[in-house]
Amino acid sequence: MSSKPRRRRSAGREARRAARQKMPTSTAAFIDRKIPYVELVSEETLELIENNAEIVLEEIGIEFNDFPQALELFKEAGADIDGERVRFPRGMCRSIVQASAPAEFVQHARNPARNVIIGGDRTVLVPAYGSPFIRNLDEGRRYATIDDFQNFVKLAYLSPGMHHSGGTICEPVDIPVNKRHFDMVYSHIKYSDKPFMGSVTAPERAQDSVDMAKIVFGDDFVEQNTVITSLINANSPMTFDATMLGAATVYAEHNQATMISPFLIAGAMSPVTVVGTVTQILAEALAGMAYVQLVRPGAPVIFGTFAAAVSMQTGAPTFGTPEPSLIVYAAAALARRLGVPFRSGGGLCGSKIPDAQAAYESANTMTSAALAGVNFMLHAAGWLEGGLAMGYEKFVMDADQASMIAILLQGVDASENGQAMDALREVGPGSHFLGSEHTQANFETAFYRSPLADNNSFEQWEQEGSQDIVQRANSTWKSMLNEYEAPPLDPAIDEALLAFMEKRKSEFADRNY
Amino acid sequence: MSSKPRRRRSAGREARRAARQKMPTSTAAFIDRKIPYVELVSEETLELIENNAEIVLEEIGIEFNDFPQALELFKEAGADIDGERVRFPRGMCRSIVQASAPAEFVQHARNPARNVIIGGDRTVLVPAYGSPFIRNLDEGRRYATIDDFQNFVKLAYLSPGMHHSGGTICEPVDIPVNKRHFDMVYSHIKYSDKPFMGSVTAPERAQDSVDMAKIVFGDDFVEQNTVITSLINANSPMTFDATMLGAATVYAEHNQATMISPFLIAGAMSPVTVVGTVTQILAEALAGMAYVQLVRPGAPVIFGTFAAAVSMQTGAPTFGTPEPSLIVYAAAALARRLGVPFRSGGGLCGSKIPDAQAAYESANTMTSAALAGVNFMLHAAGWLEGGLAMGYEKFVMDADQASMIAILLQGVDASENGQAMDALREVGPGSHFLGSEHTQANFETAFYRSPLADNNSFEQWEQEGSQDIVQRANSTWKSMLNEYEAPPLDPAIDEALLAFMEKRKSEFADRNY
Repeated sequence: MSSKPRRRRSAGREARRAARQKMPTSTAAFIDRKIPYVELVSEETLELIENNAEIVLEEIGIEFNDFPQALELFKEAGADIDGERVRFPRGMCRSIVQASAPAEFVQHARNPARNVIIGGDRTVLVPAYGSPFIRNLDEGRRYATIDDFQNFVKLAYLSPGMHHSGGTICEPVDIPVNKRHFDMVYSHIKYSDKPFMGSVTAPERAQDSVDMAKIVFGDDFVEQNTVITSLINANSPMTFDATMLGAATVYAEHNQATMISPFLIAGAMSPVTVVGTVTQILAEALAGMAYVQLVRPGAPVIFGTFAAAVSMQTGAPTFGTPEPSLIVYAAAALARRLGVPFRSGGGLCGSKIPDAQAAYESANTMTSAALAGVNFMLHAAGWLEGGLAMGYEKFVMDADQASMIAILLQGVDASENGQAMDALREVGPGSHFLGSEHTQANFETAFYRSPLADNNSFEQWEQEGSQDIVQRANSTWKSMLNEYEAPPLDPAIDEALLAFMEKRKSEFADRNY
Repeated sequence: MSSKPRRRRSAGREARRAARQKMPTSTAAFIDRKIPYVELVSEETLELIENNAEIVLEEIGIEFNDFPQALELFKEAGADIDGERVRFPRGMCRSIVQASAPAEFVQHARNPARNVIIGGDRTVLVPAYGSPFIRNLDEGRRYATIDDFQNFVKLAYLSPGMHHSGGTICEPVDIPVNKRHFDMVYSHIKYSDKPFMGSVTAPERAQDSVDMAKIVFGDDFVEQNTVITSLINANSPMTFDATMLGAATVYAEHNQATMISPFLIAGAMSPVTVVGTVTQILAEALAGMAYVQLVRPGAPVIFGTFAAAVSMQTGAPTFGTPEPSLIVYAAAALARRLGVPFRSGGGLCGSKIPDAQAAYESANTMTSAALAGVNFMLHAAGWLEGGLAMGYEKFVMDADQASMIAILLQGVDASENGQAMDALREVGPGSHFLGSEHTQANFETAFYRSPLADNNSFEQWEQEGSQDIVQRANSTWKSMLNEYEAPPLDPAIDEALLAFMEKRKSEFADRNY
């Protein structure tokens, strides 16, 4: 370690803490990538995978369980139907998808400034999805409630690194299973103006999501534009079930977006190799996306991939290891070759707590997803414990990393100001740049400032209580929630949403499945 | 979160802990990269930087302080000398470097199986360097001693992710400054058989390092081969000092390798922009490498870069943020264009402790360095607190990440086994792959197994004491040191080394500078 620059006089502990806790609020609605895609898999291997996926579709086939509508549509389109097993002539799924699926689309937010473009060179970072539990430093781990759900909607709204409000950020287990989708969709609309995801746990819940969106955006607007994305997991290996297909059908019929996502733990739900797993992913995604295009040609569809690696010792999923990263690099490249947007996960980890394991794994998954060219990065903030818990501290820590990813994807500024030749001439050998004109003109925006990282001297850090990042993150999310102000919502729309929910909830009994 | 595979019956807490603590011991001597370099900066911008660096060298120049030999050599080679400022005609440094610097070279280890190739498609991961303090969970932070130094040499020896024993892994402050280099070099030789770095804090200490290497390898072998690498920092901006130049001269004269490393905190010791900083780095590295080639044409030289970003609030260096990553991507590409090996840092962080901040930052820096194509990755394990402390737990955590990087850089296996078509045919829709023939044949090596990550269920993790990764890492490094066995060393060589040290140490008084 060589000498460090002299520390500037600082305004004391409280001012520093305040500065640290203040998250920047202005942000781009999404990332418009300026760097090349990172291609770690050769074209030859990608072609091999495409060929093998066609063999899977043609010889092995995909099952569509308890959902005759899919069998009928595929039969009409020329597939071979054997019970619930569908076998596709070579190239059939690919040509159906390429004939009508859009390469990119706008997902509208209720605040048009928050609209996101999904596909092409864009990256949209989205909170984690689906945890029954939450964790924070004060309470440890417990079941999530609708209050937690709303807290995370607010934190995502306030986080410049998050471009989307997400979907089932955590399961509000204090509300009956068959009614909680109303409260989730309402919370996304009420407490944020970023775009959101709809319910997929039953076709009628998907329909309720669409109907609530129509109250906000208007009937015609929803039929002609995309205002909801939805997560349709394949039941890997090579199976789709009626619940997911039913929800996908509703969204597609209304021109809303579906993410067809093989969800698998490689070695358990797919082969134990990268190329074998990606082959299966491509086959499953092609079949699912083809189904959506048969329901409504042109409906936005996203090629999804969720891949962990199984621990051969325990059977548990593992995250942040190199093989699933390679799976994401390969799958992203295949989606580009196919010409559809790509979704995968970042910020994933197996750790139960927001410790260094969580951070290594989350950074590894987020970086691979970003460099690979993921367009819709689900789980980018908050994920713990293989998705079983949503962490408050983890959320703000990941959101900080998400803001950094946005800068990385912008690449370098080669303008005259970026070249800084005047600064080099002004300062010359043996001096320092802190006071130079160029530094003064650029220092506000030159380098990313993390609101959570502590880079002070050891002595100062000790004097401030030897806090780890989780303790600082704990203060940060609390002060964010304290300072939160809801984005304005037309009171007539708010009332209409509440009336709709009340009416619909009264139409059937509570049920916890 | 969808359903998980069933957990296998496990052999209980102790067996699991033992399995986790057992680090694999066989490993490749270095990484032979199979994936493409990740190029985030356009050729046009790289050319612009090269052009601007020539302007810096020609118009501003570089200072060589208190070292007339450099001024004389540069004058003879055609540079313009103004006091200690050297201005280089356009292209002069580049052509000197390209005329004789090798594109890659072998650094020999005393165990030939541990020889590393530095340059080309190879990546060599090396422990952190230069900390006066150590940190561990038991003792907190304290000054380092020679015992710590030896412990880290042993840990690096036992870590398959580390290809090199490093240099000043930590400062043994219990030994006088002017004699500790003997003990450091001896410890590298005695407790490891991986290659190592020599002293650079004075020319005579560099000479002692060479002389000790000659005892191990033989005089002629050392003069004809490279057995030492050395870290020569520029005193940025645009200055080299006599200490570093003196050490570089000794190593070059003996055909040993020097890493010419601009060491800077961008915004303080270089401009506050990425392109401006890289321009300065290239100019400094070109001048330093040209000096080495003038001393001895053909002496191995490495283009080095150490870049952090200054915190504009406090003046402190910050790590793991996107701008220094972009600096490394650019500098690595420039080194490739120049045709010399490239060195940068990975595993860097500003955190005082091995918390999530440390891990996010370390993962970010290690991944960028690896993808960018760093050939010699210093600081890849152990670094805390901007390099002021070497962490025991951090070391084994980083070494685990280093093992994963090795797999990532191998890319995907597209062989018939990798394609796994038989597995897909055998299993088919709706079943699972755990018991398939292909899985059974591959599961031992299919996915990286972290010895530190906990991926068990929440309940099992809680039952095992709710440990964070630092607590597990604490057990790991202790059991590694317990089980350590020194690699065999010819007793005659050992005695000769000890005799040399004793004699040399008796020739001058202790001094603490």
